[in-house]
Amino acid sequence: MTRFGIIGGGLMGHGIAVALAQAGHRVVVYDADPATLASLDERMVRALERCDLPPGDVGLVTARVTAAETLAELVPLVDTVIEAVPERLDIKQQVLEALEAKIPAVLPVWSNTSVLSLTEVAKGMRHPQRLVGVHWWNPPYLVPLVEVAPGAETDHRFVQEACDALNGMGKTTVRLHRDVPGFIGNRLQFALVREALHLLEQEVCDPATIDTVMRSSLGLRWAAVGPMENADFIGLDLTRNILDALAPHLSAAVTFPALDKPLSAGRRGRASGAGLLTWPAGRNEEVAQRLDNGIRRNLALP
Amino acid sequence: MTRFGIIGGGLMGHGIAVALAQAGHRVVVYDADPATLASLDERMVRALERCDLPPGDVGLVTARVTAAETLAELVPLVDTVIEAVPERLDIKQQVLEALEAKIPAVLPVWSNTSVLSLTEVAKGMRHPQRLVGVHWWNPPYLVPLVEVAPGAETDHRFVQEACDALNGMGKTTVRLHRDVPGFIGNRLQFALVREALHLLEQEVCDPATIDTVMRSSLGLRWAAVGPMENADFIGLDLTRNILDALAPHLSAAVTFPALDKPLSAGRRGRASGAGLLTWPAGRNEEVAQRLDNGIRRNLALP
Repeated sequence: MTRFGIIGGGLMGHGIAVALAQAGHRVVVYDADPATLASLDERMVRALERCDLPPGDVGLVTARVTAAETLAELVPLVDTVIEAVPERLDIKQQVLEALEAKIPAVLPVWSNTSVLSLTEVAKGMRHPQRLVGVHWWNPPYLVPLVEVAPGAETDHRFVQEACDALNGMGKTTVRLHRDVPGFIGNRLQFALVREALHLLEQEVCDPATIDTVMRSSLGLRWAAVGPMENADFIGLDLTRNILDALAPHLSAAVTFPALDKPLSAGRRGRASGAGLLTWPAGRNEEVAQRLDNGIRRNLALP
Repeated sequence: MTRFGIIGGGLMGHGIAVALAQAGHRVVVYDADPATLASLDERMVRALERCDLPPGDVGLVTARVTAAETLAELVPLVDTVIEAVPERLDIKQQVLEALEAKIPAVLPVWSNTSVLSLTEVAKGMRHPQRLVGVHWWNPPYLVPLVEVAPGAETDHRFVQEACDALNGMGKTTVRLHRDVPGFIGNRLQFALVREALHLLEQEVCDPATIDTVMRSSLGLRWAAVGPMENADFIGLDLTRNILDALAPHLSAAVTFPALDKPLSAGRRGRASGAGLLTWPAGRNEEVAQRLDNGIRRNLALP
């Protein structure tokens, strides 16, 4: 049993708390926003319902998680600190600076950063050797993957300890040789999203068609067979022939008119009722439920 | 009941024959290679076993498929011709020229091309208005998606007829506004593969790690929620922020050292016993079975 402190009780912070508490660990969550802390318990209960936990067990898990109203209150209670604040370099650096002023030099710090460079996040730390990139996927209590990466100055013993701890909880860890923006999963994801936007901008199809393609072909396969095994399966010569033919046509864009257009019209997605698609009442809940079901059926069977 | 002629009895041709015959259609398959035709029946039986068809029904389905030893023998028996020869422009153009010399101007022709430009394939045709891109996914009798696209000169009535016929068989069709190399699915797939190879070349991780990431995170989700719905779900502003941060780091490569290296060492993948991964005895069958199971469990449940 490790005592984890989490800085940031939002979407990822509360999800990580649930995942750790389910594995039997004690967790203390600090957030600068009192409203976020006040709703923590209610949000954890909803998360545990998504895990189909028996109602009697919900209380056992949530009892392992407590809220701290200040960083000073959290620090003496924990063995490892997890930074899960919004993905902004200035915020992350401020939080780490405030944290380091209060903790011993040997205490491990995990950052949920993946889009920002971990090495950049660590700049300004007094003891950057203890900062490990530990990137969870949403929701952390359902998705098994955790990506673990060292920054340029990270001591590899901290990386190994993080992997051991996560593996011990039943998570599936992958260890990057070095940190790159987006780690592995988000680079793969957004390489594909970039090409999807490219197809919209070329007026090849509409957004719903992209999703139909993914859900009716590639999405059926990628939980079973990954892209490298598939490349070997069809043959690397064929894979290279296809790439030779397609690569000159694939997006290398760094601007995204297909996003700018809806955004400039106030269509920000689910939260605003429309984005690339329309979001009538009920779609939000339907999508969340469909996502959980999809993840669980792929985890349940060999 | 339509009578389909298929030119090319290889992997895709025999798979398309099975899909059509399962839907009750008659199919005549022609291939220039007598050995390919001779093994057609045996391969169809194996395919139908993968569909868990009752053994009594296997004979009913295969009886709908016959082999033709010449193109001249096939032509008078069919209402629609499907071209499923290897993905090489010169071969496809030769086959279509030979075919057009023998069939009426109004007979629909579907091409399984997706990586080549359909408009290029149609060049040299006397009646290019009848050529429709109809791209099936492997295996065609399990994967529901069929991508349908017009070439630059295609008459849209032929496109509509193809969609209607495929929808009537229970396939999930998407209709592209125009043909682009790779259509939609292969562009999405190979944009992701390109980035995976980029990560290998940057020595961020090994090939097996790419597959672990895919199978333990994104692959669990993409059968349930596609990338455009997900972009709306997390918000288009967040999506744009992530892309702004990652896009400058994503691959725009048109050469692929991570493929050239194993290929130049004779490691061509599964068929040569090693590629990006090693392929000891039994892995081939294990992967094929795992793929089928993965596809079916995602199709079986809501």
